[in-house]
Amino acid sequence: MRYEVTGAVQPQVVRRPDTLAVEEPMEIRVAGSALSVTMRTPGDDFDLTLGFLHGEGLIRSADDVARLMHCLDADEDGSPTYNVVDVTLDDGVTIPENAGRRFLTTSACGVCGTSAIEALQTTSRYAVASDATVVDPALLCSLPGRLRSAQKGFDRTGGMHAAGLFTSDGDCLVVREDVGRHNAVDKVVGWALREGRLPLTGHVLVVSSRASFEIVQKAYAAGIPVLAVVSAASSLAVDLATHIGMTLAGFVRPPRFTVYAGGQRVGVPAVAGHG
Amino acid sequence: MRYEVTGAVQPQVVRRPDTLAVEEPMEIRVAGSALSVTMRTPGDDFDLTLGFLHGEGLIRSADDVARLMHCLDADEDGSPTYNVVDVTLDDGVTIPENAGRRFLTTSACGVCGTSAIEALQTTSRYAVASDATVVDPALLCSLPGRLRSAQKGFDRTGGMHAAGLFTSDGDCLVVREDVGRHNAVDKVVGWALREGRLPLTGHVLVVSSRASFEIVQKAYAAGIPVLAVVSAASSLAVDLATHIGMTLAGFVRPPRFTVYAGGQRVGVPAVAGHG
Repeated sequence: MRYEVTGAVQPQVVRRPDTLAVEEPMEIRVAGSALSVTMRTPGDDFDLTLGFLHGEGLIRSADDVARLMHCLDADEDGSPTYNVVDVTLDDGVTIPENAGRRFLTTSACGVCGTSAIEALQTTSRYAVASDATVVDPALLCSLPGRLRSAQKGFDRTGGMHAAGLFTSDGDCLVVREDVGRHNAVDKVVGWALREGRLPLTGHVLVVSSRASFEIVQKAYAAGIPVLAVVSAASSLAVDLATHIGMTLAGFVRPPRFTVYAGGQRVGVPAVAGHG
Repeated sequence: MRYEVTGAVQPQVVRRPDTLAVEEPMEIRVAGSALSVTMRTPGDDFDLTLGFLHGEGLIRSADDVARLMHCLDADEDGSPTYNVVDVTLDDGVTIPENAGRRFLTTSACGVCGTSAIEALQTTSRYAVASDATVVDPALLCSLPGRLRSAQKGFDRTGGMHAAGLFTSDGDCLVVREDVGRHNAVDKVVGWALREGRLPLTGHVLVVSSRASFEIVQKAYAAGIPVLAVVSAASSLAVDLATHIGMTLAGFVRPPRFTVYAGGQRVGVPAVAGHG
């Protein structure tokens, strides 16, 4: 979105147009009830919705959704905003009453260490530990650069995250950008879901950000065996990746990268865990 | 937290210890009921709790909270995890039944443009538009560097965000780090709340990340007139800052910065809005 801003290069001041990453709320409704509101960059809203529902464990495939439509809500000028997605589930598909509060369902003081992982982990329908995919380390190193070069939004704004799905041979299937890294991943997974490509056995998910617990969780739900990120990984991301047998590489910046879990898939000895 | 990782500098592979940013879930309970679970870096949990409750508009001052304590939940080895904070509100203080679902309270197709801002905006008890604070532009430019030099966690892990509170003369009052930038801001605001310093008239909040809607909202709730971030600002962050009269500067990297709103406080003509 174009804005007029003031750029200061001390001591000069220059007024100039600037393009900002668009952030707008999107509400997901299921059967007329609000399930979630996420701050996202508009675009690929249906994929975002599918990916979100899947990451939350609420749908198993695109077939679980009978219809997706934008509510034609209008802004004050009467223009449609497309900021509400209405989901009609297929006959027989239901979601739990407490959906959208999934983090609030721990019944006891159980938010800790291993039990936190058990409690927070969306049980994936797919195992990734047995995935025998191997990715050439030099190829792995090249993927963030290829993701970056596909990031049209970042070029314009300097303020968007990206997620991209690659084959183990380095073919790029899809790249999605968003102000939120979780949304970028949801858009990628939603695309794959709609294309009937799950589980994403043998694929590599590349994300332009850090790896948090939630990013690992979303990749796991889609059956992705290799996650590569440009920045750091958190402790819980590494613990979860180790637990489920996913390969997690961080600081992937040629010629370097750091392997936190599942090194056997990227040509280095498997090593992980608390030092 | 110390981990054993594998560093690859193509084609060498080196096994080495590494320090990861700790990410663990923290549940906030009010009167025994789970209100929220956030993934955070342990430390300053009570300030995080106070800041979160305040940012959500659920408490007005530290006096609204009678007691904060860690539930002594234990991990599988029997060690306390300190991952649940139990909040006892002061007599007469109540929170709405739908708290924790604040984004889900829009009653109609109203998640759009200006009405989104109205709907999502935590009404602040403090006005910032009338705050006459002026910050020297060169001083403003220096603040991210000073924040960075106070970031002990980032030095070790490369994977933590920081928020710092400065006076308009550049005195640093507090710096907090977290895997989540929202949490870092909540910890800073919670500290100020506990110290009885709200509203933070005349102060500058510096955040190591991008500026999203939610960061502007949290600063607004604390009465902070100037927000400076190291990276980009989103469209909705700029719209909200413009709407409430907050100064928002992004890409603050000496000698440059970009002013998105409220330039009169940082020595450049006020200019903002859609170009």
